[in-house]
Amino acid sequence: MNLHDLMRELHEENKSKIVLLVADGLGGLPLELGGKTELETARTPNLDALVREGVCGLSLPVLPGITPGSGPGHLGLFGYDPLQYRIGRGILEALGINFEVGPRDVAVRGNFCTVDGEGKITDRRAGRPTTERCVEMCQRMREIKIPGVEVFVEPVREHRFVVVVRGDGLADAVNDTDPQAVGVAPLAAKGADAPSQKTADAVNAFIAEAGRVLKEHAPTNMVTLRGFARYPKIDTLKEIYGLNAAAIAVYPMYKGLARLVGMEVLDAGATLGDQMETLRKVWDWYDFFFLHYKYTDSTGEDGNFPAKVEVIERLDAEIPKVRALNPDVIIVTGDHSTPSKLKSHSWHPVPTILWADSCRSDRVTEFGESQCLHGGLGRFEAKHLLTLAMAHAGRLAKYGA
Amino acid sequence: MNLHDLMRELHEENKSKIVLLVADGLGGLPLELGGKTELETARTPNLDALVREGVCGLSLPVLPGITPGSGPGHLGLFGYDPLQYRIGRGILEALGINFEVGPRDVAVRGNFCTVDGEGKITDRRAGRPTTERCVEMCQRMREIKIPGVEVFVEPVREHRFVVVVRGDGLADAVNDTDPQAVGVAPLAAKGADAPSQKTADAVNAFIAEAGRVLKEHAPTNMVTLRGFARYPKIDTLKEIYGLNAAAIAVYPMYKGLARLVGMEVLDAGATLGDQMETLRKVWDWYDFFFLHYKYTDSTGEDGNFPAKVEVIERLDAEIPKVRALNPDVIIVTGDHSTPSKLKSHSWHPVPTILWADSCRSDRVTEFGESQCLHGGLGRFEAKHLLTLAMAHAGRLAKYGA
Repeated sequence: MNLHDLMRELHEENKSKIVLLVADGLGGLPLELGGKTELETARTPNLDALVREGVCGLSLPVLPGITPGSGPGHLGLFGYDPLQYRIGRGILEALGINFEVGPRDVAVRGNFCTVDGEGKITDRRAGRPTTERCVEMCQRMREIKIPGVEVFVEPVREHRFVVVVRGDGLADAVNDTDPQAVGVAPLAAKGADAPSQKTADAVNAFIAEAGRVLKEHAPTNMVTLRGFARYPKIDTLKEIYGLNAAAIAVYPMYKGLARLVGMEVLDAGATLGDQMETLRKVWDWYDFFFLHYKYTDSTGEDGNFPAKVEVIERLDAEIPKVRALNPDVIIVTGDHSTPSKLKSHSWHPVPTILWADSCRSDRVTEFGESQCLHGGLGRFEAKHLLTLAMAHAGRLAKYGA
Repeated sequence: MNLHDLMRELHEENKSKIVLLVADGLGGLPLELGGKTELETARTPNLDALVREGVCGLSLPVLPGITPGSGPGHLGLFGYDPLQYRIGRGILEALGINFEVGPRDVAVRGNFCTVDGEGKITDRRAGRPTTERCVEMCQRMREIKIPGVEVFVEPVREHRFVVVVRGDGLADAVNDTDPQAVGVAPLAAKGADAPSQKTADAVNAFIAEAGRVLKEHAPTNMVTLRGFARYPKIDTLKEIYGLNAAAIAVYPMYKGLARLVGMEVLDAGATLGDQMETLRKVWDWYDFFFLHYKYTDSTGEDGNFPAKVEVIERLDAEIPKVRALNPDVIIVTGDHSTPSKLKSHSWHPVPTILWADSCRSDRVTEFGESQCLHGGLGRFEAKHLLTLAMAHAGRLAKYGA
């Protein structure tokens, strides 16, 4: 019996409220041996109060040593095994620009490139066009009609765009057309099976037409596509966990990820204060609230240790607004670590608080990596966190007689 | 998606160097309640320095409570699930005498026994002959030719030898011919399927011939065979992890285990000092270095607590030679525990250090079982250790977008 079968069997309804606050890339590293991490450096009186009353631990987003992207990182926190459920690059790109992908869609990331008179690539990024130009060229490609499918072309930024092919019976086992080299022509798309070949046929026809409409617009005179991905079939949080879930996120990708698992995506405003205001307004309408805070990740990616410390302190300042609503369970965690020392996502386990009246509190007194190591949740796979939240919310029946 | 599929997908090449130093049977037990283990008793300033800069934990070789043999113990450390990959007794015996088994081989452990005039066993170990006699009798059996296969007979010690049957289409689902009793004749070999029956036919013919050539040499006048094992099909470290790996081991079995996973087995000399000299010489040629140190296990097996302490101190003294090469990742661990109190392999988790610039250091200050319990790696399954090494070496791409 897998985790989801178990949850389907055991989940119960009640009036409890669960708040999952994801500080993206929360975990960090000290800059020097024996030093403090960003989180340990930050003054976090409100998080520390949660820590003292709650139970702490370190979350492994996927497996030891595995650095997750945003997709697997969030799926784990949403209670989905990130090794079982995969969200392809094309879909994630589409989610990131707020394109509402659906079950009949195959999405793929596109790049403008430059080809010579013989059709051979001379620049794989078409000289990095402006985003304005990207928008203009995507507009041209929107004229293209391919029989049997709908095609959507959406600009992203510079040389990057998204193509979504919508139709019945499409699949995504299609090779990248980007040859990852110059001096050669883009590759033809080929499907590994009949439904994927249907996608490949549509895409090859689209690329031929794109070459025609872009012909006079060097350096953006051709396109390559990579990361074909079908809309993943994912049972919802409602179906598996019985939760009416709402997402209060600012950035499109996280809204999209939440929508994939069946959360209702709410209008959140632009700041954490706005998000808290939304939370307050909709408090009575949902069981489960996913709040996403981006800046712990972006400051880490920038390698800006003091800025990461500062945005953690800003997050801390908003915690009383969550507590004022009297939730039954509050979780504060991250989808992965983003140490400013490494300027990237990393594999290091993520400090986590679970606060609830029924938790077995531990001796952790301050929110930080070193202390969480000795917390009552131990080191746990992220996919189990929602089960723990459900338990502490009184939403899980006993397993077996 | 399993661990190996994930590693195949994510591994990347760079110039980093990983050293895996396996002190066989490293973990131990105190002799008295409240006392120190062998490792805790040993003076280990160099290992303690690694500990303070690195991250520690306790490795579970297979599963809680499972005591591994050398095969599963090492497979886990090499990044192979020891419950998925099994190395049969025959193959392990062959590796232990430095016989180079290959993909067309079925190996089996042989025992000399004594039979009476009716062919019934009167002594299952033929009165424990000398090893000299074992060699002589094996020499006689080497004359035996069986059509369609090659047969190799190699002495081990006393009544023990190894038979390797080499041919196409052989399998190892063959019963032991040793009836585990006296007063009965050896059993005939039977195959559970057609390829195994091919092995059984060859083996039955071999046994009949062995009875003939040994007839006048009582008490070593018959043989029994057990532990039929085909050469295991194991994808290499290069294929799965992208590592060019070298093994620097003294004892044949560990060389053989390393060869099974595709490591290049280097001439190591006889002492740890020789091994370190080999490491230095070949440093530029490989990505990954497996060093095997036997004496922590053999002193434990002997029940010699002070001797185990002493060989740990000798190991510690060589650590600066590893550090002088500036590896990116150093791991010090064992394939299992061998507490001298128990005089045998045991199930107790194994103290482990992972040292790297990108590790999240913990507060462990001395290398030992009690302190490692509070280390940042926690208690982890050994099969994940190589993933962690790869991550800290910058050799793993992000999982998912």
